[in-house]
Amino acid sequence: MPELRKDPIVGRWVIISTERGKRPSDFAPAVKSKEPKSCPFCPGNESMTPPEIFSLRNNSSGANSPGWEMRVISNKYPALKIEGDLNREGEGIYDRMNGIGAHEVVIETPDHQLDLVDLPVEQAKQVFLAYKSRMIDLKKDIRFKYLLAFKNQGEAAGASLEHAHSQLIATPVVPIRVQSELEGSERYFTYKERCIFCDIIRQEVSSGKRVVYETDGFIAIEPFAPRFPFETWILPKSHESDYSKLSDSMALDLAGIVKITLAKLRVALADPPYNYVVHTDAFSNSGKEYYHWHMEVIPKLTKIAGFEWGSGFYINPVAPEDAALYLREITVS
Amino acid sequence: MPELRKDPIVGRWVIISTERGKRPSDFAPAVKSKEPKSCPFCPGNESMTPPEIFSLRNNSSGANSPGWEMRVISNKYPALKIEGDLNREGEGIYDRMNGIGAHEVVIETPDHQLDLVDLPVEQAKQVFLAYKSRMIDLKKDIRFKYLLAFKNQGEAAGASLEHAHSQLIATPVVPIRVQSELEGSERYFTYKERCIFCDIIRQEVSSGKRVVYETDGFIAIEPFAPRFPFETWILPKSHESDYSKLSDSMALDLAGIVKITLAKLRVALADPPYNYVVHTDAFSNSGKEYYHWHMEVIPKLTKIAGFEWGSGFYINPVAPEDAALYLREITVS
Repeated sequence: MPELRKDPIVGRWVIISTERGKRPSDFAPAVKSKEPKSCPFCPGNESMTPPEIFSLRNNSSGANSPGWEMRVISNKYPALKIEGDLNREGEGIYDRMNGIGAHEVVIETPDHQLDLVDLPVEQAKQVFLAYKSRMIDLKKDIRFKYLLAFKNQGEAAGASLEHAHSQLIATPVVPIRVQSELEGSERYFTYKERCIFCDIIRQEVSSGKRVVYETDGFIAIEPFAPRFPFETWILPKSHESDYSKLSDSMALDLAGIVKITLAKLRVALADPPYNYVVHTDAFSNSGKEYYHWHMEVIPKLTKIAGFEWGSGFYINPVAPEDAALYLREITVS
Repeated sequence: MPELRKDPIVGRWVIISTERGKRPSDFAPAVKSKEPKSCPFCPGNESMTPPEIFSLRNNSSGANSPGWEMRVISNKYPALKIEGDLNREGEGIYDRMNGIGAHEVVIETPDHQLDLVDLPVEQAKQVFLAYKSRMIDLKKDIRFKYLLAFKNQGEAAGASLEHAHSQLIATPVVPIRVQSELEGSERYFTYKERCIFCDIIRQEVSSGKRVVYETDGFIAIEPFAPRFPFETWILPKSHESDYSKLSDSMALDLAGIVKITLAKLRVALADPPYNYVVHTDAFSNSGKEYYHWHMEVIPKLTKIAGFEWGSGFYINPVAPEDAALYLREITVS
């Protein structure tokens, strides 16, 4: 059973997940670049994955058979397990709980050769709506406090299969980085009675120098203090703390700006591995005045990471104004 | 001029350092695996580095010439610059200051072929004493609030030159990860009136299951909630918040346990790239009852990093008890 453990000093929870039968000397996950024939995410290989939670089908094909456009399944090697109660216990000064959670995979397309950036915008929209519908469903489980939606693209970014997919992890605790944002934005609201993300958007639209792209509903910017070169944030322009309130038309708009942002990064940086993560409100008390959901996209470029892990101090060799200018000037179809 | 910028939401400072004349498309640092003839850290090539700040010499050789055992120089491409005043300014809702600081390099040995782990313990001791003496010196500069001592070993861990070296960065702000530890340990002290690190040491010694190695003065453990496989902490057993109080005999003891820990990791993990960082007290108000200096050693093994950066949620496939058992059983000379 996976286990959640809390660092007693800083309060950060980590998942200790040793389920895959690995020995300590054999922990580095091999990255599988499979042919469509043996890829578990390709049509015809549905039996190689756990049963689907839901799928999009434009025809009369049955569940767990070919004919789908998008498919959501449980992760075969989940970091957290759905069964069981949330038992908390101490070990001397330490705290742990059993690793209850949900770990799902969104297979974004049946086509092994395509990435999210290549999908028609209507199909990419379905990916973002899938995050939403899983969020609404998992929110009903009172054991969970958060749903992380994220994507690892490329081996260096931690993807273990190359077929386009994203992941969803429901956790019984709020991730510490989201918690920091919740606390920081609440402090700002207490002081100013304004949402700090709304203030950021206003200032960025007005100055323009860190803007990468804008649509009716969204803005893509290089943040003022980015940790990484070409770190890019995508925010809805209207205030909303809860991703699961995303309307169909907003989802289409979001899919469009994500596709354009990823396409610009692909041209600028020679198809880099990347990660993105959706930061939304915690499940409890949603509808906050002070928080604002957004996406963070991080191309995986620099290897200078260990020092940053140790200190939390990031050294970024590219000014966000330069990165934004560079990305703005790249035209993508 | 490098610049320090503060994330307005979570309060994290980053260094934007674009000084090396890179274009946005050309930011990924090339790793130089140089021959001794062209290595700037090798004896005879002293003119390829900035002048030395100090060196250890057992003979009458002059500064910036061969004959040294260890050498401390300014970084040729500093992330922060030593000259100037600490000007703070706003940009709308954002905060920045100019990138004042010190960035130094400790060349640990004249021998291009050796790593820290290979050095005689007396010589490794000098490396740890060099951190101390630079800390004492830089603490006198009232612009600085912290000195980070760290080491990147191997290309994947961010080293840009293979000749054994560590780095020192003095910063005008306390790094956020250290700040979290200071705040967390203060909360614990307020509640329990005990140092949390001392409590951790007591519990680990008593249970033994996460202990990697022990000397008279130090203990090496796998922490209860490690972010990474084989993450290892080295702590002085006696309470001390300030690294710069390290005595000569403690430095020898520290050099010994660091060498043994690194040697065990080298055998266990096939000479992995790694980082270590020294976490010590902030310059102001040192001598804290609640904080306890220590080192964190992180072998760079997994590539699954971007998700963790986005969420702060770490998934670790190796239980620390298994890693500790594995490391304990490895005998090194």
